[in-house]
Amino acid sequence: MAPKQQAFVTEITPQSEDFSRWYTDVIRRAELADYSPVKGSMVIRPYGYAIWELMQSALDRRFKETGHVNAYFPLFIPESLLRKEAAHVEGFAPEVAWVTRGGDETLEEPLVVRPTSEAIIGTMYSKWIQSWRDLPILINQWANVVRWEKVTRLFLRTTEFLWQEGHTAHETEEEAEAEARRMLGVYKEFLETELAMPVLDGRKTESEKFAGAAHTYSVEALMGDGRALQAGTSHHLGQNFAKVFDITFQARDKSVQHVWQTSWGMTTRLIGAAIMVHGDDSGLILPPRVAPHQVVIVPIPRGDWRTTVLPRAKEIAATLKQAGVRVMLDDREEYKPGWKFSEWEMRGVPLRLEIGPRDIEQQQVLLARRDTREKLTAPMEGLETRVAELLDAVQAALFERAVAFRDGHTLRTTSSDEFRRAFEGRPGFVIAPWCGSADCEAKIKADTQATIRNLAFDLPPATGDCVRCGQAGMTDAWFAKSY
Amino acid sequence: MAPKQQAFVTEITPQSEDFSRWYTDVIRRAELADYSPVKGSMVIRPYGYAIWELMQSALDRRFKETGHVNAYFPLFIPESLLRKEAAHVEGFAPEVAWVTRGGDETLEEPLVVRPTSEAIIGTMYSKWIQSWRDLPILINQWANVVRWEKVTRLFLRTTEFLWQEGHTAHETEEEAEAEARRMLGVYKEFLETELAMPVLDGRKTESEKFAGAAHTYSVEALMGDGRALQAGTSHHLGQNFAKVFDITFQARDKSVQHVWQTSWGMTTRLIGAAIMVHGDDSGLILPPRVAPHQVVIVPIPRGDWRTTVLPRAKEIAATLKQAGVRVMLDDREEYKPGWKFSEWEMRGVPLRLEIGPRDIEQQQVLLARRDTREKLTAPMEGLETRVAELLDAVQAALFERAVAFRDGHTLRTTSSDEFRRAFEGRPGFVIAPWCGSADCEAKIKADTQATIRNLAFDLPPATGDCVRCGQAGMTDAWFAKSY
Repeated sequence: MAPKQQAFVTEITPQSEDFSRWYTDVIRRAELADYSPVKGSMVIRPYGYAIWELMQSALDRRFKETGHVNAYFPLFIPESLLRKEAAHVEGFAPEVAWVTRGGDETLEEPLVVRPTSEAIIGTMYSKWIQSWRDLPILINQWANVVRWEKVTRLFLRTTEFLWQEGHTAHETEEEAEAEARRMLGVYKEFLETELAMPVLDGRKTESEKFAGAAHTYSVEALMGDGRALQAGTSHHLGQNFAKVFDITFQARDKSVQHVWQTSWGMTTRLIGAAIMVHGDDSGLILPPRVAPHQVVIVPIPRGDWRTTVLPRAKEIAATLKQAGVRVMLDDREEYKPGWKFSEWEMRGVPLRLEIGPRDIEQQQVLLARRDTREKLTAPMEGLETRVAELLDAVQAALFERAVAFRDGHTLRTTSSDEFRRAFEGRPGFVIAPWCGSADCEAKIKADTQATIRNLAFDLPPATGDCVRCGQAGMTDAWFAKSY
Repeated sequence: MAPKQQAFVTEITPQSEDFSRWYTDVIRRAELADYSPVKGSMVIRPYGYAIWELMQSALDRRFKETGHVNAYFPLFIPESLLRKEAAHVEGFAPEVAWVTRGGDETLEEPLVVRPTSEAIIGTMYSKWIQSWRDLPILINQWANVVRWEKVTRLFLRTTEFLWQEGHTAHETEEEAEAEARRMLGVYKEFLETELAMPVLDGRKTESEKFAGAAHTYSVEALMGDGRALQAGTSHHLGQNFAKVFDITFQARDKSVQHVWQTSWGMTTRLIGAAIMVHGDDSGLILPPRVAPHQVVIVPIPRGDWRTTVLPRAKEIAATLKQAGVRVMLDDREEYKPGWKFSEWEMRGVPLRLEIGPRDIEQQQVLLARRDTREKLTAPMEGLETRVAELLDAVQAALFERAVAFRDGHTLRTTSSDEFRRAFEGRPGFVIAPWCGSADCEAKIKADTQATIRNLAFDLPPATGDCVRCGQAGMTDAWFAKSY
C-alpha cells in the first residue's frame, strides 16, 4: 500500500483513543459537514447532504404510503402563541432565538424562530377543521428548526438543524394513539432497513417526554461507544394543544369535541448516528441504501490505460448506473490508485471496483468490500447482478454486526450492585427493574449519568425490586448514558 | 348543472372584475395557501405544496444533470458578514429580520435571518477553495429565506418564502459567464416545458440588477392581467464577493487569483405565476406536468353503483397509476357528481374521467378537458395511452395559448406618443428604443409605472431614438408594469 494511505488514515484519531475526536475527524475529513462562522450552526456539505437527501426520500416515500401529505408553515411564531401551552413554553422558552426587529422597526411582539411547530400548526388547524369530515388531518413538514445551543457537536447538537415534523389530528383518542404508534413503527422499519441501525422502541418516562405531550414514544439506537442516541420520537399529544388552540369539530353525533393529536419527528442527527454505529478507524462505513456512491470504480493506470482501461471502466459505470446503482468513476489523473483506495474507504463507499489491463484480458474486475475488506474477482458478464447482491450483502452484514454489538452491550440485571457497577466501565444498555418514581430516576442519573431511554410499551410487570430504592418494581426500564 | 356548482363558481371573483381578488379567491378556495397569524407569512397548504414538490423535483433533476450538488448553509448570518459587501448590504439591510436574543442572553452581535446566502456561502468557500483543482464549485441550496414585507400577497410577496439558490465559483470570467447564461437557459426550458409558461430571457439594466452582482439575467413571464413577473434570475457576480470574502485559489500558472462567481434562484412565487398565467373564472388550470392530480375519476352513482361502477373505477385508477399517471378517485358519498365536477375544475385538474353504468355496458368512459372543456368518449381498451396523449395535448395547448396571449400583448414601437399611450389602457410588453440612461429609465417608471424588464443579451443597436428623451437609442428595451 502507498505510504500516502497511511498518512491519511492516521489523520483520523482512532476510536479507541478518543471516540468523540474520531467522530469529528471523520466528519471533517470526509467533508460531510463543517463549522460555520455562526456560533452553534453547522454547514452540511454536499457529501453529507447527499446522505440526507437519500434518507429524506426514503422517509418521505413511507409517509406518503401511509397517507400523509406535506405542507409548509411559517418559520416565525408570535411569542403569545408559544405561550399558550404552559408545559410547551416551559420546555422550549429557554432555548429559542428571538426576532425583535424587522427591517428598521422594532417589533411590538417578538417572534420566536420555530423550535418545533405545534403552536403555529395548531392555530391553523383550528381554522381548517370544522367537522369530522375534515379528519383525520395527516400533514408532515420538512423544515429547519432552531434551538439555541452553547456547544456545537456536528449533526448531534447544533442551534439549527433540519428535520421533518408530522402533525396529525384525529376524531378519537384511539385513532391518535394508533397513529403515534404506527409512525414509531415506520421510524423503526426505516432505521433498520435503510440505515442498518437496530433500535429499541418503547415509551418515555414522564420526565423524558416531550413538553406538552400526553406521552412520548421513541426509538433508541446504540452508538459505537456504547452510548444511546434517540433516533426519532412520536408523541401522543392528547387534547392538550387542541384545548389551548381551540381545535374543535362537530362529531358524528353532532356534539362539538376537541381533536386528538400526534406529532413525530426525525432530524439530521441521524447522519451522526449512522456515522457512530457503523464507522471504524479508517473512517466512514455507509450502509449501501444511503450511500451517495454505492460503488467507486478505480481504473488502474498501467500502460496505455486511457485507451484500453478507461473506456471499459466507463462502460461498466454506464451499465451499473443503468441498473440503478449509484456509481462514481474516479478517473482523476493527479491521484494514484493507492491514494484513491484509502480516500474512498475513508468516505465509506460500500464497494470498490478495480479494473486494470490484466482484468480486461481476463474479462473480470476486482471488487473490495468496505465493511469486511474482503476482495474478490467477478466476471464482467453479469456484473450488475453481482454488484447488487454484494450491496445487499453489505447492508445485511452491517445490520447484523450492529445487532450483535447492541446485544453484546446489553445487560439484564435485578441486582443493585451489578446495576451500579455496570455504568462504571462498561457502556451500553442496562435493563433493570424500576419503581416508577421520578425521584429514583433522577438519583440514578446523578449517580451514573444514565437515564431511562425507554420502557416497554405496555409496562409489563418488573422482574424484581427497584435497583435504586429496593421498593417493588413497577416495570423494567432500559437505562443508558446518552447523546 | 347542480345549483351547488353555481354557488361555488360564483364564490370566485371574475378575472375581468378584479384580477387581484380573483387571484386570492382562487388560492384560498383551492386550498393552495392561507394567511397565518404571523404578519407577512403564509402557510402553504398540502395542495399548493404538492405543486411545489413537483416543481422542485423537476428543477432539481435539471440541476443534477448539469453537474450541481445540494448542500445546506446556516439560516443565521452575523451582521458583520452581511456588511462586508457594500452594495449587497445596501440592497438587503432595509428588509431583513434581526435575531437579537438567543435563549436568555442578548447577543453581542445581532444575527440576520438570511435574505440570500452569498455572504455566508462566500465565507465557507474561502475556507474550502485552495487550488484550481477545487474548482468549479457547483452548489445549490433549497431553503427558506426572509425579506421583511409590510404587505402580504400570497406566493408573490411574503416575508418568508421557499426557494433554491445556486452558488458557483469558477477559475475564469468566461466560465462564470457561461454558467450564469446556462442556468438562465435551464430556467427558461424548465418554465416552458413544465409550467407551460413562455418567458422572455435577457439582461437586467444596472438599476434592476441584484445588489452586489456584475450583471443579472432574468426570465420574465406575462400574467393574465398583462403584468410581467420575474420568474427567475441568474447573476454573474464577477469577483465582487470573492474580493470581500477573500476567496482565492492557486491558478494553473501558480499565481494566486480570486474566483469568479454566479448565483441564481427561483422561488415559490412561481406557483403564483402558474395560477395567473393559466387560470380562468372557474378557478385554477394546472399544467399536467405540475398537477398533483392529473386525472380525477368521478364515478356516477346510479343504481347498484358500489358493486358495478366503483370496482371498475378502482381498476381504472390502478391501471392509470401503474402507467405513471397521478390519479385521484373521488368516491366520496357525501357529494354529488355535479358538485365534484365543479370542485375539481376549480382545483385545476387537467382531465376528468366520468364512469357510470352505461359507460361500463359500452366499455368506455367520458373524458373532459379542463382547458377547453371539451368532452369525448374513450374506449376502456388502451385508456392509459389515450389519457397520456390527452395530458400531453393539454400541456401543449396551455403553452400555445400563453404564447398567443403574450404575443397579442406585446407591442413594438419607436414612437414616443405610442409608447406613452401604450401603458394607459393596454397592458403587456412594450418593446421600444432606450438611450441607456438610468435617468430616462426612472422617468419612464414615474410616468407609466412600467420598468425595463430586460434588454436583449448582446445589446443589439436600437431601432430608433429613445422614446423618453429623443436622444440616440442604445438598444431596445422590454418595458412592462410588473409584480
